[in-house]
Amino acid sequence: MASDQPPKLGEDELSQHIGAMALQTDTLLDAIFTDYTNHHASERLVEAMAYATLNGGKRIRAYLVYGGAGVINGQNDQAPQHGIARVAAAFECLHAYSLIHDDLPAMDDAATRRGKPSCHLAYDEATAILAGDALQTLAFAVLADPDTHQDDRIRADLVLELASAAGCAGMAGGQMLDLEAETRRFSQSETMQMQALKTGALITSSVVAGGRFAGADQASLTQLRTYGQAVGQAFQIADDLLDAEGDEAIVGKPLGQDDWRGKATLVAHLGLDAARKEAERQVRLAKEALGRIPNSAPLWLARLTALADFIITRKA
Amino acid sequence: MASDQPPKLGEDELSQHIGAMALQTDTLLDAIFTDYTNHHASERLVEAMAYATLNGGKRIRAYLVYGGAGVINGQNDQAPQHGIARVAAAFECLHAYSLIHDDLPAMDDAATRRGKPSCHLAYDEATAILAGDALQTLAFAVLADPDTHQDDRIRADLVLELASAAGCAGMAGGQMLDLEAETRRFSQSETMQMQALKTGALITSSVVAGGRFAGADQASLTQLRTYGQAVGQAFQIADDLLDAEGDEAIVGKPLGQDDWRGKATLVAHLGLDAARKEAERQVRLAKEALGRIPNSAPLWLARLTALADFIITRKA
Repeated sequence: MASDQPPKLGEDELSQHIGAMALQTDTLLDAIFTDYTNHHASERLVEAMAYATLNGGKRIRAYLVYGGAGVINGQNDQAPQHGIARVAAAFECLHAYSLIHDDLPAMDDAATRRGKPSCHLAYDEATAILAGDALQTLAFAVLADPDTHQDDRIRADLVLELASAAGCAGMAGGQMLDLEAETRRFSQSETMQMQALKTGALITSSVVAGGRFAGADQASLTQLRTYGQAVGQAFQIADDLLDAEGDEAIVGKPLGQDDWRGKATLVAHLGLDAARKEAERQVRLAKEALGRIPNSAPLWLARLTALADFIITRKA
Repeated sequence: MASDQPPKLGEDELSQHIGAMALQTDTLLDAIFTDYTNHHASERLVEAMAYATLNGGKRIRAYLVYGGAGVINGQNDQAPQHGIARVAAAFECLHAYSLIHDDLPAMDDAATRRGKPSCHLAYDEATAILAGDALQTLAFAVLADPDTHQDDRIRADLVLELASAAGCAGMAGGQMLDLEAETRRFSQSETMQMQALKTGALITSSVVAGGRFAGADQASLTQLRTYGQAVGQAFQIADDLLDAEGDEAIVGKPLGQDDWRGKATLVAHLGLDAARKEAERQVRLAKEALGRIPNSAPLWLARLTALADFIITRKA
């Protein structure tokens, strides 16, 4: 057990560190795309993949990958090991693929993503479908490559971890349930399951993958999983609260203030106050799980703790 | 070197065996889908995945997986090991995903697939996109699972093998080039590269993956790769020849007899006779590569030889 209180980390300090780590991830992603372009892959396809991936995302999933490894193996340096950066990049590729396909006309039909035309508008629909497909493949190619980790077992486990989170019993299944939620009223438990799969599974898997990379034992992986699930829940509720009562000027996108009541969200089921309390409860659960990781590294413990707090205090 | 001539195998015998092996693959695929349905995955999504996968396909890729393993480890039994059947199933999931996305309105806009409504018509476009996505994920989940092979290194290598064949420098890259071929005239070498990526990469990877599963050394893997590439080339030319001069009643789909000249095919570049000669040359190269595999198992050697011959003599 971590006997000492971890050092406290302010929001600004955390944001800065997340930004610095995002830069590392983006640099590696850029190098990976450049490498493919130089090796006879279709230039247009790789360009579309890079366009949709290198778009100024906050790289929260990458940060959770770094955090899951850091809290186990105590590496605090600003420059992450090459291998863990590859794991982080793989999770961001998987996430980027899901956003490209989410934005397609047959799905959310979104015209913009992070203020830029979505991939199918910047290129075309066929290219966007293929770019998403190839980004998913790339995520698994990166994880399985010996360059990521010298231990074969860990690489195979990382692939299985990501595949379990992304597939029909994870993210893709959650997206399907989300489509079904438009056609009939979801119960509270159905809503929770949908959200746990659609966004929670990949968030959870990110921090667990970091732990796997660092060789965490089963007990620690279980705590990381509990942390990730709780953070994922809190994250989703906070998003829905922002959508219901946030400041459009700060959030930077149109909000659905007037129609949150009918939606498949916990806010709609519980109301604003109870939803906020539930998010706070999840943050407590997340921090308790961190506290149960033996020999955890203090600095990364502080960062993951601050990240959990930050989720429900953020304004955008 | 295989010192004895392998036993000759007739077309009927080969077809029967391919059919028997396809049944094994389909039985396993069915069990995998049922298992997911029982484990809280979205029922509609898994149903769409199963619909698009269990559609009476010939399972040539699965057969090449079995063949690549069989020629190395000599397992001749009708009932394949559970592990190799899982590898075969994974390759068919990957292939099925590519067909679902190929058929989408933004891609080939195909109304039918093997005589049934294509996935996006049987369900809807969003479901078809997600079903394809989840089938790709499933392929990697199956390969990385310890149930597939006890050797961690082999599982990681199988994932990397499939990912290399499927991604932007493989199948997806080839599909992108195929879209580009509609907008400008491709040279002969561009046409060959496009086809090598679009269909050749997965065919090649199937037989190499079988070899990897069976623990083949690098020299044998190289021969299996050469075999796969040559078979893939011959397969594509034979397809284009059928399209140009086949019998619609036998082939069972509308053929493009009148407009083969303008297309990005080797038949268009070389003409019918030279293309046929090139296919025959590729079949010879394929058989020569098989002959260079040390200690190869005679029955599977005969099967893979017959498969290469069968490619250019088939009528449908």
